[in-house]
Amino acid sequence: LPPINRVHFNNHCRCLHVESRLIPPNSLKSIKLVPKGSHCPEIEVIAGLVSGESICLNPHSSWVKKLVSFVLNEQGKAPKDQA
Amino acid sequence: LPPINRVHFNNHCRCLHVESRLIPPNSLKSIKLVPKGSHCPEIEVIAGLVSGESICLNPHSSWVKKLVSFVLNEQGKAPKDQA
Repeated sequence: LPPINRVHFNNHCRCLHVESRLIPPNSLKSIKLVPKGSHCPEIEVIAGLVSGESICLNPHSSWVKKLVSFVLNEQGKAPKDQA
Repeated sequence: LPPINRVHFNNHCRCLHVESRLIPPNSLKSIKLVPKGSHCPEIEVIAGLVSGESICLNPHSSWVKKLVSFVLNEQGKAPKDQA
């Protein structure tokens, strides 16, 4: 995956740019949600990639919401519920 | 908030114990989702607290799913959609 948007950590918002391109799920290692607060007026969604990079995702884009809900709901099914 | 369950980082799953008690939203700094994979058969949900602690949440409990969906959907509303 080509380097897209590095996460520039500053003492306010962590994301200066957000990436709207789809991230292949298999390159995803973690998804971090940073709720908005006094430090930053927007929620931030930071994807940790298998490559070790962190990139900011667009919290408003539907595929990001679908990705989070898939990871949590589909993967989060209690073992007995899984199809 | 009393120390609940420290996150024991090991080279497999990161969470040895999960906390089912409700975490007051205002003590929450971040929520990290670690999809299941070869390193761990279960998705892991790690809350970063304002106190600096990290605790593992139960990915199967409904309040954790509601919390993530609130943070992402409610907070993630594009500025013009916000009520």
